[in-house]
Amino acid sequence: MSDRITLDHGSGGKASHDLIEEIFLSSFSNKTLNALEDSALVQIGSERLAFTTDSYVVDPIFFPGGNIGDLAINGTINDLAMRGATPLYISVAMILEEGLAISDLKTIVASMQEAAMTANVQIVAGDTKVVPVGKADKIFINTTGIGTVSEGVEINGSNGRVGDKIILSGTMADHGITILCQREGLAISGDFCSDTAPLHQLVAAMIADSPGQIHVLRDPTRGGVATTLQELATSSQVGILLRETALPIRADVQGACELLGMDPLHLANEGKLLAFVAPEVAEQTIAILHRLPHGSNAAIIGEVKADHPGEVLLETVVGSHRRINMLHGQPLPRIC
Amino acid sequence: MSDRITLDHGSGGKASHDLIEEIFLSSFSNKTLNALEDSALVQIGSERLAFTTDSYVVDPIFFPGGNIGDLAINGTINDLAMRGATPLYISVAMILEEGLAISDLKTIVASMQEAAMTANVQIVAGDTKVVPVGKADKIFINTTGIGTVSEGVEINGSNGRVGDKIILSGTMADHGITILCQREGLAISGDFCSDTAPLHQLVAAMIADSPGQIHVLRDPTRGGVATTLQELATSSQVGILLRETALPIRADVQGACELLGMDPLHLANEGKLLAFVAPEVAEQTIAILHRLPHGSNAAIIGEVKADHPGEVLLETVVGSHRRINMLHGQPLPRIC
Repeated sequence: MSDRITLDHGSGGKASHDLIEEIFLSSFSNKTLNALEDSALVQIGSERLAFTTDSYVVDPIFFPGGNIGDLAINGTINDLAMRGATPLYISVAMILEEGLAISDLKTIVASMQEAAMTANVQIVAGDTKVVPVGKADKIFINTTGIGTVSEGVEINGSNGRVGDKIILSGTMADHGITILCQREGLAISGDFCSDTAPLHQLVAAMIADSPGQIHVLRDPTRGGVATTLQELATSSQVGILLRETALPIRADVQGACELLGMDPLHLANEGKLLAFVAPEVAEQTIAILHRLPHGSNAAIIGEVKADHPGEVLLETVVGSHRRINMLHGQPLPRIC
Repeated sequence: MSDRITLDHGSGGKASHDLIEEIFLSSFSNKTLNALEDSALVQIGSERLAFTTDSYVVDPIFFPGGNIGDLAINGTINDLAMRGATPLYISVAMILEEGLAISDLKTIVASMQEAAMTANVQIVAGDTKVVPVGKADKIFINTTGIGTVSEGVEINGSNGRVGDKIILSGTMADHGITILCQREGLAISGDFCSDTAPLHQLVAAMIADSPGQIHVLRDPTRGGVATTLQELATSSQVGILLRETALPIRADVQGACELLGMDPLHLANEGKLLAFVAPEVAEQTIAILHRLPHGSNAAIIGEVKADHPGEVLLETVVGSHRRINMLHGQPLPRIC
């Protein structure tokens, strides 16, 4: 590891994982943290709680489809939902740069409240710090959430089983390509829009229909679908086979990725989930997702294999296979 | 209110309160948040949980007595303790500036783990973001904590009662004066050291000895003892009388404050608590605090009065009375 923090360390890819392993886990090590799930699961009295934190530093703070505020609320709701939790309470801590327009802050706060109300969660705790101009970039927001996990719900990244079907709940790379085009002022034709959205209703419906058959849930944010699946192949010690023709992606996003030489499998999503489900419930799960907001483009994109444990293989359009890796380097700093 | 965020908004004083009222509470309004306690209290199933968040942006990140890491852990432990909670779990979210020395990060992380172990809390969830050089200042840390509150414990800022004695658990202004001297490179003679420390043991001992008689607890961080007491006078709708001669303060800190023209009542503390306790248990509470680490200089500094509700009066050394106000303006940005 280098002796200085680099942007790669924030990519969500290989360098982030190395930093977490070498610096954080080596010091903070405990069973709950080491699981490296989207939420920690803790038992308090008779209650099983999911607990998750994320700081948001996205640039720009306003973008088509949302802003840093609803992104922060939805992101924490989703991290709770990925453990099968019902989101209940969220804390909001803001770091504001001197000079931030109060009108921008009001817009962001209103979006946060709307996102919280949509998901029926309460913002119950807060903190505000201000730093001098040039010591932050407009606004950074931390959201930390608590939810409850019902008895019998066991959804985690080690729970993938050979034969599971892999579902992606909608089109990929929308958030990543939107932020990239906004930030760089790229005039690529396309109607790009962040997919920021809460996913807890999708999760609740899937679990209600097929309790015990939903094995793994994860939202592919930083590092994209490829990085998330690589993590899951490792944590479940299984092989993953994806079918390129099955991957849902908007034509304009696909085109923009080709133009920019970026792999949409590595671009961030903020309103999509990956699910590993028992094969016998895969089709009915897709049917359920199709009826819900944010699930209309859900598709089975691959399956879990015994071969090549720890690897993700993509069966390409022409029938060849190539290995998919975790994101290396940092094509897009400050994506969320 | 101005149309831009200013450093005053982060002072913990009057401008911070106005920002919270006008922007955050007007949008996020709910009973739990509106209480504006150090921790929110939420009921989940049969459990009463305290939940609190704080971001730390202190400059410099290393200072005599601690660093931003143990400050962040102790600060969140203390916010939980001020509701009478037993701290259990903490999340840690870091925003790192590109270029931060990995060795500094390791030192900070080690301090955090040590502080967590000292207080018997687990760091169970985390997040790391990296922003380009010049878009943050080395490192910002958010810590969010969960603790449990036993049945019958009702400690909050509205619970101050006429006749209560007011206890300060040790010398004031140590953290504030230390950060100020470090940051400005002031060569004032004195052996200044931050008081960053966990206060949950003091609280547990006080509650165990006098259940129901400990009415209010609050740690006077940003804005100092004066601002915190002003908040409490308002929330409890009582008058507060302080005795200047009773205020514990180190001689060198007092001297530095005089030299700099600063009121130690407005300077931050990071290992002290204010308690409003029933008069019949005040002396025994002091005796308990004196036997514990971080409580050896505890003193009764005043009492709660029916006169002048909402006001804090200081009986000076010469016997006159002057009104103490919330901090206005921002003598010390980025104190925590």
